[in-house]
Amino acid sequence: MSNQQACGTSQIAGCRFSVHPMTDDFVNVILGALEEVDTSKVWMETDDVSTCVRGRISHIFDVTNAIFVHAAKTGKHVAFSGTFSIGCPGDTEGDVYLAEDDVRLNEDVTKTIEQPTACQFALYPMGDGDYMDVIYHQVQEIAKLGVDVSSVHYATRLDGEANDIFKGLEQVFTKTKESGCSHTVMTVSLSANSPSHKGGK
Amino acid sequence: MSNQQACGTSQIAGCRFSVHPMTDDFVNVILGALEEVDTSKVWMETDDVSTCVRGRISHIFDVTNAIFVHAAKTGKHVAFSGTFSIGCPGDTEGDVYLAEDDVRLNEDVTKTIEQPTACQFALYPMGDGDYMDVIYHQVQEIAKLGVDVSSVHYATRLDGEANDIFKGLEQVFTKTKESGCSHTVMTVSLSANSPSHKGGK
Repeated sequence: MSNQQACGTSQIAGCRFSVHPMTDDFVNVILGALEEVDTSKVWMETDDVSTCVRGRISHIFDVTNAIFVHAAKTGKHVAFSGTFSIGCPGDTEGDVYLAEDDVRLNEDVTKTIEQPTACQFALYPMGDGDYMDVIYHQVQEIAKLGVDVSSVHYATRLDGEANDIFKGLEQVFTKTKESGCSHTVMTVSLSANSPSHKGGK
Repeated sequence: MSNQQACGTSQIAGCRFSVHPMTDDFVNVILGALEEVDTSKVWMETDDVSTCVRGRISHIFDVTNAIFVHAAKTGKHVAFSGTFSIGCPGDTEGDVYLAEDDVRLNEDVTKTIEQPTACQFALYPMGDGDYMDVIYHQVQEIAKLGVDVSSVHYATRLDGEANDIFKGLEQVFTKTKESGCSHTVMTVSLSANSPSHKGGK
């Protein structure tokens, strides 16, 4: 993996994700959520498998957070699977969106939506550097947001409010990136309204 | 990421994955698929967010392939999101399953199920080494299985039969691992029976 792009969090970030409402009405749940989210500060493309958003870190998390809570507020069992990345070697399409400021377009609405959520995530810092201390410290920081933190095979588990979980994920992703200048990848699985009544608080 | 475990493909591999049937009847689709799959050669644990299987590479792919096609054969729109990994620093729980032979328990049934599928996957070889040539070559090999190969942001796209796609994924994962001795991670998203009628053949 090469490392030829500009460093710092002004670099373009992205997330390829899917939202899976476990209901016969899944199309309307997805389209309804998308309609309520302002995506004008990100490059976005949807195909039949997933959606890709690219732009500043702040807006990538703002948009994915908003899409998830708007889908989950329907009360249906909704899962989110995504991979966040920054520093991925490749093209520069979408870089124009880096000119946007950091004012989040969806936060005012999103923060009014309470949604107990279970999360499993894993961080993969590519390239040289010892990031483990940074990751360990940042995972502890997530607990300060009122989120329960635990471990499972291959992942860290978070249980709490969706908005707090997204805030924690953005923090650990940003700090890991800032601690070096390479390719950082984070996989995230979220589950809301699971009938098993585990997850969330 | 340390690299303290035994090398080679006799090392324990794992996959943390979720199957998401987009139907009100999602519980029965998942349970029905699980009932038809023989998981006796893998360590397996399911929680409310995902399922983790661990053991030999052959059985990890045999079991995930089987669960996916048994869920998808219902005709419902089914998505699979998972992360395959090998060489992950950590505990040794489940290592007893490495004593199993490579005879696949589900292949005879799975291979009778035709299921057009769309896939997006990404490989992340952690640690030192130049794996890009290996990955590039192995992705070309997948095309020889009769699978269409293309690129999207952050991922490689595969369109074809589910069983061929799983075979291709296992090949590229194994060869990447064999080319070095470190921590290899592969994210996989699969989609079957999407109403958009894209994906598959």
